[in-house]
Amino acid sequence: MADTSGKRLLDSDKTGEPAPDVKRGKTDNENGREDGNESVQENVLSGFKTSSVLSDSAREKNIFIHGKVADQDAVVILEKTPIREDSLAQLFSGSTLKLEMKNDIYSTYRLQAPPHLNEIKTTVVCPATEKHIKKYQRKESFLVEETEEDYKNITLPHILKQSFSVQWVYNILEKKAEAERIVYEDPDPDVGFVLLPDFKWDQKQVDDLYLIAILHQRDIKSLRDLTSEHVPLLQNIFQKGKEAILQRYNLPASKLRVYLHYQPSYYHLHVHFTKLGYDAPGCGVERAHLIADVIQNLQSNPQYYKTRTLYFPMRADDGLLSKFKEAGRL
Amino acid sequence: MADTSGKRLLDSDKTGEPAPDVKRGKTDNENGREDGNESVQENVLSGFKTSSVLSDSAREKNIFIHGKVADQDAVVILEKTPIREDSLAQLFSGSTLKLEMKNDIYSTYRLQAPPHLNEIKTTVVCPATEKHIKKYQRKESFLVEETEEDYKNITLPHILKQSFSVQWVYNILEKKAEAERIVYEDPDPDVGFVLLPDFKWDQKQVDDLYLIAILHQRDIKSLRDLTSEHVPLLQNIFQKGKEAILQRYNLPASKLRVYLHYQPSYYHLHVHFTKLGYDAPGCGVERAHLIADVIQNLQSNPQYYKTRTLYFPMRADDGLLSKFKEAGRL
Repeated sequence: MADTSGKRLLDSDKTGEPAPDVKRGKTDNENGREDGNESVQENVLSGFKTSSVLSDSAREKNIFIHGKVADQDAVVILEKTPIREDSLAQLFSGSTLKLEMKNDIYSTYRLQAPPHLNEIKTTVVCPATEKHIKKYQRKESFLVEETEEDYKNITLPHILKQSFSVQWVYNILEKKAEAERIVYEDPDPDVGFVLLPDFKWDQKQVDDLYLIAILHQRDIKSLRDLTSEHVPLLQNIFQKGKEAILQRYNLPASKLRVYLHYQPSYYHLHVHFTKLGYDAPGCGVERAHLIADVIQNLQSNPQYYKTRTLYFPMRADDGLLSKFKEAGRL
Repeated sequence: MADTSGKRLLDSDKTGEPAPDVKRGKTDNENGREDGNESVQENVLSGFKTSSVLSDSAREKNIFIHGKVADQDAVVILEKTPIREDSLAQLFSGSTLKLEMKNDIYSTYRLQAPPHLNEIKTTVVCPATEKHIKKYQRKESFLVEETEEDYKNITLPHILKQSFSVQWVYNILEKKAEAERIVYEDPDPDVGFVLLPDFKWDQKQVDDLYLIAILHQRDIKSLRDLTSEHVPLLQNIFQKGKEAILQRYNLPASKLRVYLHYQPSYYHLHVHFTKLGYDAPGCGVERAHLIADVIQNLQSNPQYYKTRTLYFPMRADDGLLSKFKEAGRL
């Protein structure tokens, strides 16, 4: 569910659409190699016809495009990659510079780099449904105030009725997809989880580190379902997630921002691990809840998240927002 | 009224150094062409030796580097350019795609584009002084965990000893400065406040609206001092601030993010009003506290902010961070 501002769109690069059999996906992939020894792909985008730009960000250098790949609707997301320190020497020696302006000690150039040093991260959603297209479209957002009663009367019925599929989450938990991306796993069925990089992170540098811990437990939809009985689960994820990140990426806990979203993008509880100092989309106070605060709040009041009025941003086209409007709550 | 974070460095990519006559700049530029008919420059950066990365942003795809150009100190700023809609067709047809991952309808690629469609904006400051280098340097920050005892034993003594001057705040409250900028005032000595634009907001558009409400009461340093007795004060600021913004800027409460910082930039309680959807510096969950949550928390537990462990980011050069380190708390 949805995100809110244009900038946050990258946050929700999966919708709740029913996911077809992963095997089919693998078959589709037979001309591809996912390891380091990759070969150049047939350019699936060479015949891409743009229908419209759904949104873009000049600050983040990304663009979300709706169009057609061989008569199928597709959403293509392009985002330039961060500049890596370890490529600077090659970049400086191997590029062409074009002078634009010179004034005193300041000069500006356009630098044309060797393509392999200046890649664009490309995500293709194909076939894309109307729902995907809407999802990526920039829409105004509104701050919604959700009381305990609003959750019971408006939000929960909406979630249950929509029955958003989280098949892709189960694919990950069952190692049917993305198994090679798993950074850490605690297999315990009660407090265990799988930790893997978020799609938004290209894993080339820790500056924008972004991992997701997905619970093995399947019956916790969101923050609203948490009570003090879940404190050991949250503590386990927090502690082991931090340890795994220290071990794998050499990043200590004091450099991490660990939080849950409310509303989340999908209703299977998951925890975000991002690098402190990286303005990750969705880390704003209006949507993020530090796991350390969540634990404290549940310890002092087991019903904290069941009873509290919660605030969250909601995009204008979100079905849930209409429900709040119909109920006269906005 | 200071902001702190590294993300804003681009804000200031020129220092306050005196700028020489522009005509001289033009003369320097005689071997360059600024029009479409430009010639390739001698690559002044081909011999650039990197000394250190001063700062970078994975989100904004920029990097600030200190190094040497022919024995002269230089600062080089690289920033990837926004993706342009009018170049998409060429980009799709002319690029090479490398498959990274495929799961169901989602696939990700690394796209290698023709260099002229994927330029990097390059700014060179040369010769650069020590002042330039310091200006572009990012200070790392760390997440600090402050218990009730830490506040009493470390933070509070540090605040009191520093006796940070808030004379500029008193000047505003007494109309000795910035009186013409005041948007709204409630003069009540107990629950009253002055509402005015933050320095970061140029007031040219509401997209990045940013106002500050400063209390008339002078004895509340921060969130840590708040108890349930301050609920009427917070409710008054929240309510009247929203009304004043609706009246002046035609922006309803559902478009606002209203919050306090902990730690604040200065120890005289104030409240931030920013537009929802604008990624205001300091609106991240690690530093911001929604006033609506603060009110609820105090209503259910009058000592909430006196007793709770609070988390906040702190820059490496902050004196308070050293105190936490000395106390073995980091």
